[in-house]
Amino acid sequence: MQRILSIQLSAHSGEIVMIAGWVHRRRLLKSVAFLIVRDAAGLTQVVVTTPDLRSQLASLPDESVVEVTGTVTANAAAPSGVELRSASVRVLSSRTESASGVPPRAGSAVPLPLELHRPTLTASLPTQLDHAALALRHPTRAAALRIAAAACAGFRAALDAQRFVEIHTPKIVGSATESGANVFVLDYFGRPGYLAQSPQFYKQLMVGVFERVYEVGPVFRAEPHDTARHLAQYTSLDAELGFIADHRDVMAVLTSVLAGMAAAVAPWAELTVPPEIPAVRFAEALRIVGAPADEPDLAPAHERALGQWARREHGSEFVFVTGYPMRKRPFYTHPDPADPAASNGFDLLFRGVELVTGGQRLHRYEQYVAALTAAGEPLGPYAGYLDGFRYGMPPHGGFAIGLERFVARLTGAANIREVTAFPRDLHRIAP
Amino acid sequence: MQRILSIQLSAHSGEIVMIAGWVHRRRLLKSVAFLIVRDAAGLTQVVVTTPDLRSQLASLPDESVVEVTGTVTANAAAPSGVELRSASVRVLSSRTESASGVPPRAGSAVPLPLELHRPTLTASLPTQLDHAALALRHPTRAAALRIAAAACAGFRAALDAQRFVEIHTPKIVGSATESGANVFVLDYFGRPGYLAQSPQFYKQLMVGVFERVYEVGPVFRAEPHDTARHLAQYTSLDAELGFIADHRDVMAVLTSVLAGMAAAVAPWAELTVPPEIPAVRFAEALRIVGAPADEPDLAPAHERALGQWARREHGSEFVFVTGYPMRKRPFYTHPDPADPAASNGFDLLFRGVELVTGGQRLHRYEQYVAALTAAGEPLGPYAGYLDGFRYGMPPHGGFAIGLERFVARLTGAANIREVTAFPRDLHRIAP
Repeated sequence: MQRILSIQLSAHSGEIVMIAGWVHRRRLLKSVAFLIVRDAAGLTQVVVTTPDLRSQLASLPDESVVEVTGTVTANAAAPSGVELRSASVRVLSSRTESASGVPPRAGSAVPLPLELHRPTLTASLPTQLDHAALALRHPTRAAALRIAAAACAGFRAALDAQRFVEIHTPKIVGSATESGANVFVLDYFGRPGYLAQSPQFYKQLMVGVFERVYEVGPVFRAEPHDTARHLAQYTSLDAELGFIADHRDVMAVLTSVLAGMAAAVAPWAELTVPPEIPAVRFAEALRIVGAPADEPDLAPAHERALGQWARREHGSEFVFVTGYPMRKRPFYTHPDPADPAASNGFDLLFRGVELVTGGQRLHRYEQYVAALTAAGEPLGPYAGYLDGFRYGMPPHGGFAIGLERFVARLTGAANIREVTAFPRDLHRIAP
Repeated sequence: MQRILSIQLSAHSGEIVMIAGWVHRRRLLKSVAFLIVRDAAGLTQVVVTTPDLRSQLASLPDESVVEVTGTVTANAAAPSGVELRSASVRVLSSRTESASGVPPRAGSAVPLPLELHRPTLTASLPTQLDHAALALRHPTRAAALRIAAAACAGFRAALDAQRFVEIHTPKIVGSATESGANVFVLDYFGRPGYLAQSPQFYKQLMVGVFERVYEVGPVFRAEPHDTARHLAQYTSLDAELGFIADHRDVMAVLTSVLAGMAAAVAPWAELTVPPEIPAVRFAEALRIVGAPADEPDLAPAHERALGQWARREHGSEFVFVTGYPMRKRPFYTHPDPADPAASNGFDLLFRGVELVTGGQRLHRYEQYVAALTAAGEPLGPYAGYLDGFRYGMPPHGGFAIGLERFVARLTGAANIREVTAFPRDLHRIAP
């Protein structure tokens, strides 16, 4: 018999069907027993009245994998309006099987390290992360990863529709150029290699090929700080486009991308992206949040205050900050032609946290030489990057969205690790 | 004026339009000059008859970035049936600009290290790779990367339609478990870390969450061999699915995925995927290619011969080989219940080269303990992986497609580096 999914049950009322999944919960009452089976689509209630099946259930630990054949029966009191009756259960994989091959005593399996059948996971975050293969099965943890998958799909769909081309760039690079301090060093066939902190240089070079490119991929930061919003590896949604007038063209594409991501995650989370996201100049942002006018950057408290301001004044969850001081932006940032101490770089805050960094980049070779020289950097380590600008590059810019940070803000997760399958940080490299 | 693309020109016949792109070629004839501008969509011919513009062109090196405004004029002799006349040219970025800010003598730019305007790149592969930012602009190199992007999109679309969920797994792992010899070692906050050689363990664990998962991402192999078909980093298209009967369910999903990829790359390359790909048992494959019956694996020459056989006997570019000896497959491989020395693992050959490895996996905890023990492996380094099987896992299997290898076979590239943007190998870590 062909297995069907829990969500398909109601279309088969009165029929004998087979479902399969994990033993999510068992309730052994006096006159009846209930087996709740979880599959990827949801839950199914199985009603057990025969003594044989009831005793089979009694010895079947939670998270065993079972096939259940039974009759689909309407029951308004059941979670999905239908349940399975007159069922038989076949065990595909039971948690009680022991390493030695000797079956343990019925029902004697070691308790699970955390309970999956409650509405929320009550185990501590370290316990969840230590037992990720189990914790991720909880519907709330799984939902966050479905949201992440949908957000990626929305990102790609929005850019595919605007003739961006997907690229895959090296994650091992020969120079620690972007910000030397937080880079992982590896042994690359006997010489030093470095894990890429972003695809920045490569996506810029690829603008010379396709004009518009994007990449969804891992980036690596040897973050020495243990915070609720930093990871040593995260998924970066990067885009870069050529033939722009300035950073505002980049902001317009980013706005369309966020709208695509919001549409994609709509089944799980409500998110409104205004057709035009409010934008404030950096100096104005400092004034709004009451910070001294000579602050070089926005502190987290400033970002929160600015997020509240955007919601209050513009009804927007998002706010752009433009015109950041050049001295706080990376060397490849394009200055504001009208105010060269300010940049054509921007940040996007989402619910009071920096979600996106972007801007217009320099595009002429001599600008790069001047910028690196002014920063006291040798040109040698940048040779492969600078080479691309020797060959003629259009005005261009781009942005990078932190996927896990987006999902964390969207779901209200207190810690980014709650929405990351197998997070990596200062202390954690397993599972 | 809003820029339009080269492919949009014919819809604007008689109008004044603006295009933008790279100086692909200039031909300065006696009475007329031609400027060929390349954008992401193709080429535009600009006809120049005025002395001023002709002299501007004469000093404009190839690959300068220009905006050209002119009148769209029908000309059956032009590459796309239309050309631009009465044009003016604005230079956005010229290759002649020097680092010192002093404009060099007109037309004096250093020659490009390779010529882009010929139908094929004639530069040697090392020269192409040394100057990747330029070489990738050649239409043939760019086309290979567009094919790769389309193949990824086809892979995802086929799996999205079958309720697979996209995942992102760690690329830094705490143990060198999969095949210790070819692993990159890094300094992970003062202790050893390893670059993941595949998402194998994680995609299996995620079957416990979503039943069906896929990942498109980089994998890393410290390949000590310098061959035309190995890279130190490549893009792996991984899928894994639960609740299968055996490996044939995996092969059916793979066949649908290949069909999706073939449909996606159709604008560039013709590829027919039969509804049922021919499959031969390993022992039969040895017989077909005339290899000794006790060979443990197929050598490259055997693969080529089997590919020719599949084309000749079945008219198929693809052929499955099933029932590989267990001793040549990884420890997590599920044996063939009818012949325990043989496995439920398979390879897929595409045009005589191994493109995909896959199969059914073990799914019970005690099977893993037995398999690792038989292989003389300690269990400790596998703890996070084994943990998932303690909690109940369904019968499952999956496969991994090497993206660059697929594109190389499809395009007939002699070396996989020709279809990789910035390849990494034993000798190359830049650009």
